[in-house]
Amino acid sequence: MNINFTIEKNDNTSKGRIGRFSTTHGTINTPIFMPVGTRATVKTLDPGEVADLGFDIVLANTYHLFLRPGHDVVKDLNGLHRFMAWPRSILTDSGGYQVFSMRELTKISEKGVEFASHIDGTRHLLTPELSIGIQEALGADIIMAFDEPVAPESSHDYTKMASERSTRWAERCLTARERKDQALFGITQGGFDKDLRKESAQQITNLGFDGYAIGGLSVGESKEVMGAMIDCTEPHLPIDKPRYLMGVGTPDDLVRCVARGIDMFDCVMPTRNARNGTLFTSQGKIIIKNSKYVRDDSPLDPECSCHTCKNFTKAYLRHLFMSGEILGIKLNTLHNLAFYRHTIEKIRQAIRDDNLGEWAAKLEKE
Amino acid sequence: MNINFTIEKNDNTSKGRIGRFSTTHGTINTPIFMPVGTRATVKTLDPGEVADLGFDIVLANTYHLFLRPGHDVVKDLNGLHRFMAWPRSILTDSGGYQVFSMRELTKISEKGVEFASHIDGTRHLLTPELSIGIQEALGADIIMAFDEPVAPESSHDYTKMASERSTRWAERCLTARERKDQALFGITQGGFDKDLRKESAQQITNLGFDGYAIGGLSVGESKEVMGAMIDCTEPHLPIDKPRYLMGVGTPDDLVRCVARGIDMFDCVMPTRNARNGTLFTSQGKIIIKNSKYVRDDSPLDPECSCHTCKNFTKAYLRHLFMSGEILGIKLNTLHNLAFYRHTIEKIRQAIRDDNLGEWAAKLEKE
Repeated sequence: MNINFTIEKNDNTSKGRIGRFSTTHGTINTPIFMPVGTRATVKTLDPGEVADLGFDIVLANTYHLFLRPGHDVVKDLNGLHRFMAWPRSILTDSGGYQVFSMRELTKISEKGVEFASHIDGTRHLLTPELSIGIQEALGADIIMAFDEPVAPESSHDYTKMASERSTRWAERCLTARERKDQALFGITQGGFDKDLRKESAQQITNLGFDGYAIGGLSVGESKEVMGAMIDCTEPHLPIDKPRYLMGVGTPDDLVRCVARGIDMFDCVMPTRNARNGTLFTSQGKIIIKNSKYVRDDSPLDPECSCHTCKNFTKAYLRHLFMSGEILGIKLNTLHNLAFYRHTIEKIRQAIRDDNLGEWAAKLEKE
Repeated sequence: MNINFTIEKNDNTSKGRIGRFSTTHGTINTPIFMPVGTRATVKTLDPGEVADLGFDIVLANTYHLFLRPGHDVVKDLNGLHRFMAWPRSILTDSGGYQVFSMRELTKISEKGVEFASHIDGTRHLLTPELSIGIQEALGADIIMAFDEPVAPESSHDYTKMASERSTRWAERCLTARERKDQALFGITQGGFDKDLRKESAQQITNLGFDGYAIGGLSVGESKEVMGAMIDCTEPHLPIDKPRYLMGVGTPDDLVRCVARGIDMFDCVMPTRNARNGTLFTSQGKIIIKNSKYVRDDSPLDPECSCHTCKNFTKAYLRHLFMSGEILGIKLNTLHNLAFYRHTIEKIRQAIRDDNLGEWAAKLEKE
């Protein structure tokens, strides 16, 4: 599918760029952060609230929706957009990352990955063809090739073998693809080896996808290593396709990685941290359960204009958190996502002002 | 405080009436159902959502807020309205019911009730004076006298003694009261004995409160017994004050009890049932986890126009419930409260049409 990715502005001081592309469900303005809606819901939020925050696209998980309620069910219910009442764009991952994250319980072969359901222990074989079949049934706007991220502790030989197998799987995904109204992104791998990263990028881009992801990062490595892996992959990705760094990251990561040429991000951090009571603010992180907030009648972040900051005090948010009240988790989630959204806006402004490079360089030194 | 209770319309076929009264934070139109916001939040809902549902008043719990975050904290934070960002009216109970519900752990004397905190086991003595002090610190619009509901299995002698002690406590509450901008309601008791109910109603009304509650019901008795207890209490309550039946009940209970002369209700049923996946609809109760809803793309209730029914299918609500997703609990809560709100509207219309008596009689026979 031609998503018409166009670059509107390049930052003169970094590889950052402002762009946009189209899906069946709207325009995606890049750089972009995609909230994670694992099981067809951005945890705690109503789809209207996600839209009000200004997000044009959310991510959902193939692995989870395959197991429950089942992709056939979602298809019968007219697809994921209707199912979750989200009229904007959706990206589904391929299931590769979930399989990686429970790798002690899986059996990987050339055919695919055999795994046991975390819900009922039933065994399933997820193949590139099935992953594409599931993603076509779900009906997201952007679907991802099925790949195998490797564990950081993997040997060079294993990483090379898995990386090359991911290329073969990527090819099978292209062959299996039937729907023409979905963009299909390839995922580059290569572990923490610069040569393997380069080889994977060359192999995957040679196959020809609608966009390209960098996979297998944000698995515990330092920001320096992550940066180095991006730097040796990015030059081999075509300039005229969106680049998506999977599973990243902190707000500072977004700044540093856009400056390295990345257009798209997703991460559970803002939503998961919110549920744990860790909140991002312009004054640094806040651990809301801290007793110093018991009588604090100020908003979480004086510079934030989100619903949470406009209406509620730290004292109330602390009370809700200490009492285990769901409203607290929801208000925290709203705020953290607003902070990410605001960070993206600041990054866009920095690109317009040609000073993203300076900002990113400052963060690299921290 | 003069709340100016006025009756606008009496039903010719029952004791039902449409009325209204004023608090510092607005007008309360009766009959009314008050959502329960135990710990200063109607569980899962944003205050804006509660207001959008059309509720003018919510209930909060003295016992819970006394223990956490503490009434002094709420007072320092400018009171409960500001704390929970709810600009409309609030009623706080006195703590009597909570003490009753954990009666195995309490020691009751003329002075008050000694109990152990469910949070940290610390021991506290809740007296009528402290209950009023807490409620004045919290700053609700309507506060309740401290009373002792008795267990259904209590002897006649104990019920009589406790009922008379509740009267003495009610008197102490009136004496302890300092704020003039809060309405103070007395609570009638008497267990399941008609004579004791009558005596309690006479004693409490003789003391002179701004409104009157019937306490100690909805503790497991049949609807016939509940009805009989209301019928022997209600004639002794002044016609020109609001009557509040505490902790009641099902939607049908609202119909039957308004027809018996009740103006105000509160109950955890709509919100608690929502969290358990039991939903009220015009076609009867729905247990959303039932597998027959897996592919059901219809709304919960075709006659309901709430946010949940307008936007989401039973299949999606089932998926959220089975996945333990918070959004599901919130959408269920929104719907159940909308159903209660709608029930109240239908009751009001029946009073206007002079046929509430007929409706209630039909339900009595079911």
